[in-house]
Amino acid sequence: MNTIKVAIVGYGNIGRYALQAVEAAPDMECVGIVRRSGAENCPAELAAYKVVKSIEELDGVEVAILATPTRRVEEYAKQCLALGINTVDSFDIHTQIVPLRRSLDAAAKQAGRVAVISAGWDPGSDSIVRTLMESLAPKGVTYTNFGPGRSMGHSVAVRAIEGVADALSVTIPLGTGIHRRMVYVEVKPGYDFDKIAAAVKADPYFVNDETHVQQVPSVDALNDVGHGVNLVRKGVSGTTHNQLFEFNMKINNPALTAQVLVNVARASLRQQPGAYTMVELPVIDMLPGDREELIAHLV
Amino acid sequence: MNTIKVAIVGYGNIGRYALQAVEAAPDMECVGIVRRSGAENCPAELAAYKVVKSIEELDGVEVAILATPTRRVEEYAKQCLALGINTVDSFDIHTQIVPLRRSLDAAAKQAGRVAVISAGWDPGSDSIVRTLMESLAPKGVTYTNFGPGRSMGHSVAVRAIEGVADALSVTIPLGTGIHRRMVYVEVKPGYDFDKIAAAVKADPYFVNDETHVQQVPSVDALNDVGHGVNLVRKGVSGTTHNQLFEFNMKINNPALTAQVLVNVARASLRQQPGAYTMVELPVIDMLPGDREELIAHLV
Repeated sequence: MNTIKVAIVGYGNIGRYALQAVEAAPDMECVGIVRRSGAENCPAELAAYKVVKSIEELDGVEVAILATPTRRVEEYAKQCLALGINTVDSFDIHTQIVPLRRSLDAAAKQAGRVAVISAGWDPGSDSIVRTLMESLAPKGVTYTNFGPGRSMGHSVAVRAIEGVADALSVTIPLGTGIHRRMVYVEVKPGYDFDKIAAAVKADPYFVNDETHVQQVPSVDALNDVGHGVNLVRKGVSGTTHNQLFEFNMKINNPALTAQVLVNVARASLRQQPGAYTMVELPVIDMLPGDREELIAHLV
Repeated sequence: MNTIKVAIVGYGNIGRYALQAVEAAPDMECVGIVRRSGAENCPAELAAYKVVKSIEELDGVEVAILATPTRRVEEYAKQCLALGINTVDSFDIHTQIVPLRRSLDAAAKQAGRVAVISAGWDPGSDSIVRTLMESLAPKGVTYTNFGPGRSMGHSVAVRAIEGVADALSVTIPLGTGIHRRMVYVEVKPGYDFDKIAAAVKADPYFVNDETHVQQVPSVDALNDVGHGVNLVRKGVSGTTHNQLFEFNMKINNPALTAQVLVNVARASLRQQPGAYTMVELPVIDMLPGDREELIAHLV
């Protein structure tokens, strides 16, 4: 069997987990890692790999896993597609997904390649479950309840407040899509905690949610990458009401995101040129192995 | 918008719910119903429809929903495909799904049409969830727990025992894929209940499960088409263990099966010629409406 030749672009948190998932995949091979600093100060686990500053320095890459900041995705994806390399990313700005898909669809079709966008767990695998649930009960309401787990966007917003040395915002699900924000703040010497707490609660990220702010000696001591989802729908199949559906998970967040990126990297090689979100991919395309054996085992 | 022209083949329990789901679909139209007895003794709700004995008597059918007994699916599907009509079915003999897919794939490709097979909730929507979960944690164990709800196959097995006037077997989930069978039996006059109970417990359908047999005055009085599923997986994403996933539903069984058949009827018009199980279809293809609007709303 020919292995799928993968490059990992960006070697932060997601990139590290992506390398583990590529190594664990029976049908893949990592042909190199792209880091801003190249091979300088390389972590020990990369000793066996070619580490470069630009993807053009790697040979034979079929798919690039973009483990970059979400705002750099479009630029890197276009660079890779133009080089004839499929791309997968976990772009997560919900309101910008449709414009990104349009932009990369044109670039992918021009290059005769495939881009899979917004592939993680939300957006991503949760999107598949939401779509499936909506199909099973076309009328009704779906609630996506997140957590408990940290929210990067909310944590960053708190860190931007004057006097904050470090901060963590944890999302607590209260049901029906309503969330509590538990905010832990390390205060810089000479700043007033009460003023910081008031600034957090007035921030647009927090103003509409129940928000509790606590001062802690060390934010790092609270760090945990576990997360969760509870997705529920109650609705109508045909004309029959009260159909009930629920999806739950409790997961290591970056490990799951990385696994999904590896899955869609595989699936990207089975699609026609263009850009796709995960709901546009057949789920079976994400698995390695013989199709008939998978069908016999899973259907 | 052109509506999708659907025929319903077979007008038993699933056929009736399928008609309701077609009527509720914004993009579909039922152009006729095929019944063995044709328009004779037609139920009142069919007054507005053309009711025929053979699908050849209907014009312009794009998709046939096969609401027939599972053992007749292959024969009816081949007849429809040869007439240039897509087919969808809820064929549910797990071990025969791969052979049916091969057989209908050849017939569908020859006709330039599409067959979607084994489309219900299990096999069907559960298969999508099982496949998704296996992709999210490639190493691990999945358990499918059914019920509480009646099992048609087990009920039929009990009805075949001498002295049984009517019977119902209810599946109770005990976790880790282990099920209890609650069997309710209406006994014909002159027969010994204890002998019947022993025969049930010795039957191949029951011999490996915890089985309780009770005599009741009326099996019909117990009839309820509610059912449920609890699908769980614990496994490994990349090299990270203890990733936990769960899918639950509590549903009206024939209403959900019929809704899924309607969904895949729609999806069938968006595939290349061939035969497909549900895990081979992009979930978004099951929904009506504009693709970008769906992506903005669901991804």
